[in-house]
Amino acid sequence: MEFPSKLLEKAVEEMSQLPGIGKRTALRLMLHMLKQPEEQTMHLANALMKMRTEIIFCNSCHNISDKEVCDLCANPLRDHQTICVVEDIRDVMAIENTQLFKGIYHVLGGKISPIDGVGPSQLKIQSLVEKVKEGKVKEIIFALSSTMEGDTTNFYIYKQIKDYNIITSTIARGISVGDELEYADEVTLGRSLVHRVPFENAFKAV
Amino acid sequence: MEFPSKLLEKAVEEMSQLPGIGKRTALRLMLHMLKQPEEQTMHLANALMKMRTEIIFCNSCHNISDKEVCDLCANPLRDHQTICVVEDIRDVMAIENTQLFKGIYHVLGGKISPIDGVGPSQLKIQSLVEKVKEGKVKEIIFALSSTMEGDTTNFYIYKQIKDYNIITSTIARGISVGDELEYADEVTLGRSLVHRVPFENAFKAV
Ligand SMILES: [Zn+2]
Ligand SMILES: [Zn+2]
Repeated sequence: MEFPSKLLEKAVEEMSQLPGIGKRTALRLMLHMLKQPEEQTMHLANALMKMRTEIIFCNSCHNISDKEVCDLCANPLRDHQTICVVEDIRDVMAIENTQLFKGIYHVLGGKISPIDGVGPSQLKIQSLVEKVKEGKVKEIIFALSSTMEGDTTNFYIYKQIKDYNIITSTIARGISVGDELEYADEVTLGRSLVHRVPFENAFKAV
Repeated sequence: MEFPSKLLEKAVEEMSQLPGIGKRTALRLMLHMLKQPEEQTMHLANALMKMRTEIIFCNSCHNISDKEVCDLCANPLRDHQTICVVEDIRDVMAIENTQLFKGIYHVLGGKISPIDGVGPSQLKIQSLVEKVKEGKVKEIIFALSSTMEGDTTNFYIYKQIKDYNIITSTIARGISVGDELEYADEVTLGRSLVHRVPFENAFKAV
């Protein structure tokens, strides 16, 4: 692409560094910004800078927060002995949305993925193991995605905590509520049969 | 969506003001930025601010530029009497890419669209009409999209310049090079027959 302006070219280049945003999309966004009032772009730029420099990660669960200890960890009404292990903040938001989990979280910040160059040391695994060693945990619930990377990560953590006297579990895999059985993949359907749930428990909260 | 951080929420909100970027996408982009070095976000924010505040529109053709008169308008080797009328800068870039047009451009900045609240006065129509009135133009080529809005805009401009002694034309509509005839829509196929081109002219440059 030959740009008629270096300023535009630079902005498109920076924007298209973001995942899923190609140069064409970036250019479309820039042309939109140029038509909108100047303040809109200023507000966006400021919000990005402020977020990137001022955001804090909870020093207990590593969730994104504006405080040293996030609202979830600081809430005395939650069960601090039941820890749900997730990949990132979106999983926390999704589970919180269900209103069925009353424990706390531990946000790993990703999963072990040699292809992407992500090893265990880049994830918040050690602090989870420490919590277990300190006897603060009754149950660990693994809620990682059921991919090879997710399973590798689960297993890597499991090995380090299995000798401590805690319960470990993973979230149930099964047919999505509302989905037709005939369209489900075999593995999921198989698992949903093997791990069937007593009827009276099916609608219980954690 | 319940965000665990006001800073994150604000950034997602600003980002999702952009067309085609929903809250989920914005959140994904923010989490990506938080994993990347701080400089990357700073560079993006600065490039956006600089572009929005410092960019200049060519005062002759209204194309985006870093100077008062863009490189195209300043080029004495181009034919300044043949003006191609386009909606926006992307069209200029696309046509320049073909290397077949040696005239100059006039960038309207959109098309007349009552539904979107865009009237003739919001577009750079008057300065085009002035150029014609001043006798500086030999040919006007309309290269707007062939939608109702494009046609309305073409016609609105045409009415004001038709009495001056200039040639007016529109770009040819036809079957895309490489496309199968059987998949073409009827209107396009019909037009491509009515406006068939002498074979020896088919590969000529403007
Ligand atoms: Zn926390
Ligand atoms: Zn120009």
